Amino acid sequence: MTVQGQRTHPLHALSEEEVLKAAEIVRGIVKVKFEGKEEVRDEVIAFNYAILSHPEVLDAIKKLGLDPNVTVQCDTWPFGADKDSSLDTPRLVQAMLYARAPHNHLESNMYSYPLPISPVIDSVDLKLIRIDALPTGGKEDGAAIHTAPEAPLAHCVENEYHPDLLSVKLRDGLKPLIVQQPEGPSYTVQDGNSISWQKCRFRIGFNWREGMTIHDVRYDGRKTFYRLSMSEMTVPYGDPRYPYHRRQAFDLGDAGAGLTANNLKLGCDCLGHISYFDALLTASDGKPYQAPNVICLHEQDAGIGWKHTNARTDVAAVTRARTLVVQSIITVGNYEYAFSWHFWQNGTIEFETRATGILATSLIDEGKTSHWGNVVSPGVLAANHQHLFSLRIDPRIDGLENTLVQEDSIGLPTSEENPYGNAWKLHKTFIEKSCSLDFDPQKARVFKIVNEKKLNPISKNPVGYKVIAPPVQLLMADQSSLERKRARFAEHHIWVTRYKDDDLWAGGKWTNQSMIEKDGVADYAARNDNVRGEDLVVWATYGLTHNPRVEDYPVMPAEAITVALKPADFFDRNPALDVPPSTQAVNKSVLAPANGVSNGNEQEVCCR
Amino acid sequence: MTVQGQRTHPLHALSEEEVLKAAEIVRGIVKVKFEGKEEVRDEVIAFNYAILSHPEVLDAIKKLGLDPNVTVQCDTWPFGADKDSSLDTPRLVQAMLYARAPHNHLESNMYSYPLPISPVIDSVDLKLIRIDALPTGGKEDGAAIHTAPEAPLAHCVENEYHPDLLSVKLRDGLKPLIVQQPEGPSYTVQDGNSISWQKCRFRIGFNWREGMTIHDVRYDGRKTFYRLSMSEMTVPYGDPRYPYHRRQAFDLGDAGAGLTANNLKLGCDCLGHISYFDALLTASDGKPYQAPNVICLHEQDAGIGWKHTNARTDVAAVTRARTLVVQSIITVGNYEYAFSWHFWQNGTIEFETRATGILATSLIDEGKTSHWGNVVSPGVLAANHQHLFSLRIDPRIDGLENTLVQEDSIGLPTSEENPYGNAWKLHKTFIEKSCSLDFDPQKARVFKIVNEKKLNPISKNPVGYKVIAPPVQLLMADQSSLERKRARFAEHHIWVTRYKDDDLWAGGKWTNQSMIEKDGVADYAARNDNVRGEDLVVWATYGLTHNPRVEDYPVMPAEAITVALKPADFFDRNPALDVPPSTQAVNKSVLAPANGVSNGNEQEVCCR
Repeated sequence: MTVQGQRTHPLHALSEEEVLKAAEIVRGIVKVKFEGKEEVRDEVIAFNYAILSHPEVLDAIKKLGLDPNVTVQCDTWPFGADKDSSLDTPRLVQAMLYARAPHNHLESNMYSYPLPISPVIDSVDLKLIRIDALPTGGKEDGAAIHTAPEAPLAHCVENEYHPDLLSVKLRDGLKPLIVQQPEGPSYTVQDGNSISWQKCRFRIGFNWREGMTIHDVRYDGRKTFYRLSMSEMTVPYGDPRYPYHRRQAFDLGDAGAGLTANNLKLGCDCLGHISYFDALLTASDGKPYQAPNVICLHEQDAGIGWKHTNARTDVAAVTRARTLVVQSIITVGNYEYAFSWHFWQNGTIEFETRATGILATSLIDEGKTSHWGNVVSPGVLAANHQHLFSLRIDPRIDGLENTLVQEDSIGLPTSEENPYGNAWKLHKTFIEKSCSLDFDPQKARVFKIVNEKKLNPISKNPVGYKVIAPPVQLLMADQSSLERKRARFAEHHIWVTRYKDDDLWAGGKWTNQSMIEKDGVADYAARNDNVRGEDLVVWATYGLTHNPRVEDYPVMPAEAITVALKPADFFDRNPALDVPPSTQAVNKSVLAPANGVSNGNEQEVCCR
Repeated sequence: MTVQGQRTHPLHALSEEEVLKAAEIVRGIVKVKFEGKEEVRDEVIAFNYAILSHPEVLDAIKKLGLDPNVTVQCDTWPFGADKDSSLDTPRLVQAMLYARAPHNHLESNMYSYPLPISPVIDSVDLKLIRIDALPTGGKEDGAAIHTAPEAPLAHCVENEYHPDLLSVKLRDGLKPLIVQQPEGPSYTVQDGNSISWQKCRFRIGFNWREGMTIHDVRYDGRKTFYRLSMSEMTVPYGDPRYPYHRRQAFDLGDAGAGLTANNLKLGCDCLGHISYFDALLTASDGKPYQAPNVICLHEQDAGIGWKHTNARTDVAAVTRARTLVVQSIITVGNYEYAFSWHFWQNGTIEFETRATGILATSLIDEGKTSHWGNVVSPGVLAANHQHLFSLRIDPRIDGLENTLVQEDSIGLPTSEENPYGNAWKLHKTFIEKSCSLDFDPQKARVFKIVNEKKLNPISKNPVGYKVIAPPVQLLMADQSSLERKRARFAEHHIWVTRYKDDDLWAGGKWTNQSMIEKDGVADYAARNDNVRGEDLVVWATYGLTHNPRVEDYPVMPAEAITVALKPADFFDRNPALDVPPSTQAVNKSVLAPANGVSNGNEQEVCCR
């Protein structure tokens, strides 16, 4: 990921002339020529400019024996943390350098040519601090740095993802699939951000750090959630060799899921009828600017919603499920995340994260393999890493006085009560104090947010919603490591805290170069507040340990992870019972005969 | 679930006249009148006929004080197992009786009126063995049976799911969403069952027990899987009170996922262009019959396949993913399962199980609650239960000589090798002998099926596919219980066995009234065969512990569980790299202005 700092970087440390120059050159491409003169080919951010125009950097690049016409590009990373950094040290940026393929196309996948040097600059005065040499060895080399030959990138090859540059032909045979909504979408938008759809009602928000947020969710008028947001994510990498150990991004706190949000385009990111929403953000000069199409809204078919066939009469009752999808996609340097809230007609709300984009790569010597990642292209090591997200769930289950309940299913031994040995009981723990908790799949553990003051009229249980997240591997970094101390939120699956204004940042308010997670969810929880029957907040940690596959390169097939909020005795029956049945009159499906031969059922047009 | 035995029941035990009568009356509705005469209203299976025409049963029904015009219906369950049963005892059937609502509509949801008696019959001679009284008490009553008043169903109320009978109005506002494929589907069908689509090629099969099967899967000509099938499922219920302890269905072995497959209809179960496939099955008289439309085939849009935006140029490359879906839906009495294989363009194959339909219910006295389930409608207890499935995966990863590898990600302590504490290593265990294994999410454990004789040219790892299943709670029943002994397959997440002809049945070949899982996967594994570099089979156990919500009634919102087979260093790059980019020219999306006001982007029609 790059530091997408161009909009917030304190350019005041430069002279006015330098500011103007940096503002002119905003994005990061320098054609490096080794005749002492660099040619600026595009806009470059101030960091990139400082790095790629520095004589020492140019000299170090020259020593790599690249084709003199090659274009070198730069990803600027948050420095992470090590013994060099603390809240009192300079604000540092570490750069990862890559070269474009010989064809030198603007859309070339530079991650196939990782340079083995990493300049470090002071992000305030843009001075070069040093150039770190990057280790390029394999299992046989330990942490040794100088293992590479004279021309260390000679074995790297072009490995492109952009359709104009592919070495393979685009596949054929994929016929168009068009979503038609002849009567338009089923949602309405009022006041710019208030969405109504199928008994659901909520507002959307957007800010530079969290990106999209969801507010005041109601179903059929009943309050369910006050505010839903991604709070933080950390991406620690597992390569222990200096200086790779510092690669630990906090993509919200360091970069901002709002600042890095894509400008979504019709025809690309959704099908059907789509509404787009802009956001107002603040530029580094303090002026507002409009970020276009940062959120899109559309409906999707979601398969069979429910079905039952009466075997006595062969009559099937079946509905299709429809979801309303609120999506934002962020690009943080090499990587993409597509975040989307899915509202279901049955009261369920899901948050889907799709990880895609390009792996962070580093150079590895020809023919070697590594403990710390996988070779995904000749000379290209993709380091093992984790993605750990914190989803902030601020509930309002029929009001603010809510309680978190941990519910386990535990088999009973054979006994007088359980003479045949087949029974289990639900063990419910009503959480009294702010704390952290973990999933335990062998107990089928679920966490419910309930309102103890309101009982379901049918079951007599408190009305509630359950929080369903995959019981993923938590942060692996050693207890004593800075990586661990900086991301304590990633030590547990669930946190519950008492609501307090500004408690928004699971990984701490200031993550860049943090040495510990300060003012983060672990601190909020440490207040030991009463949370039973209180205005509480639940934080769900989820993610994935990503040991890259070769198939994840040169661009990664989207990997989806879902967290669900499902009503649990909140309603007095299936709330999607009143969804109209699926009928051919509405769905207009088309019979495509098997084997090119009709099976005679073309006229069969209804399931009732 | 009912015993769907009408097609396989050994009717030879009846006289020819009786066979003809039973064949005439095939499905299970008797209007009970208490004037000593029953009126046959519809076809009834032999079991139903025997039960609902028996004077003792009619007498027991009469004592329940129902409206004399009520229609009583019957679900026949496999007997399960208890000390009464063994392979030497009579083949028994236990019946659950329910009443239709007073309006007496054919589509009435009888599960809202569960009768507290359960007749048991001998399924061979159709004689009544006894009538078991069903306990109707709550927590306060323990295992006591006689807790109900004179009219034990008086507090039950109508709770319908069929759209013609709903007490609530169908919701409005849902606009049509039509999938148009103007050039038709992207797949072709040859020879009746050979499917080609987007570099994937496979055959489909169908049999009475497993339902649909997938054969000889190849991607771009390379062999991946020899045979994929659902092998068994068990649904143990957690109510320990006699005779509820016996409710443990084996829906494949007892009932048959082929025999219970729905006749799928255009307009109901899929959108877009759809092909249907029939199956030939064998009736109880030995004659073949055609089961129509038991499999459907269609394509779905599957969201963003991959995306990357080059932040330097703001150029996005994005593809949408398409999946090919092979679906079969079964109705086993009250419950439905929609099974579907999803083939992805990137080589991933997913098997999705959607559980829907109606919960198995029993009567509970007014105002009481239970440890053993949830009250989901007045007087209606939905018992806690588990669903545990076994997916049989017979691989052929570039040939038959395959190996199962267990791969864990384990954090390293801080050390000379790991000075900053951020690293982990992959611990790979190559499985040598047939055995059982379990997931361990805190180690991010994955199981890969690899071909050690063929290394990926890029990473030098053996080519493989990984098996990704949720690490669900396994069978809770006590070690000593019959439920546990009958379903040893459900004791572990993964089994690996050496291929042997006829090793197809995870839960044993004969499940009905089994006392142990005999000739099941635990026995196959116990052969202690070499499985490294051999023709092996992997079995994945997955499912869910279902403690019902009120929202799961009167018909359950579909609950989806997915098992995925993903290439892991099988290919030398992202195999979906050549999928054509998403463009508005193909997708024809429509801008639905936010807030009713255009944001001026209507002309923006391309993402490249």
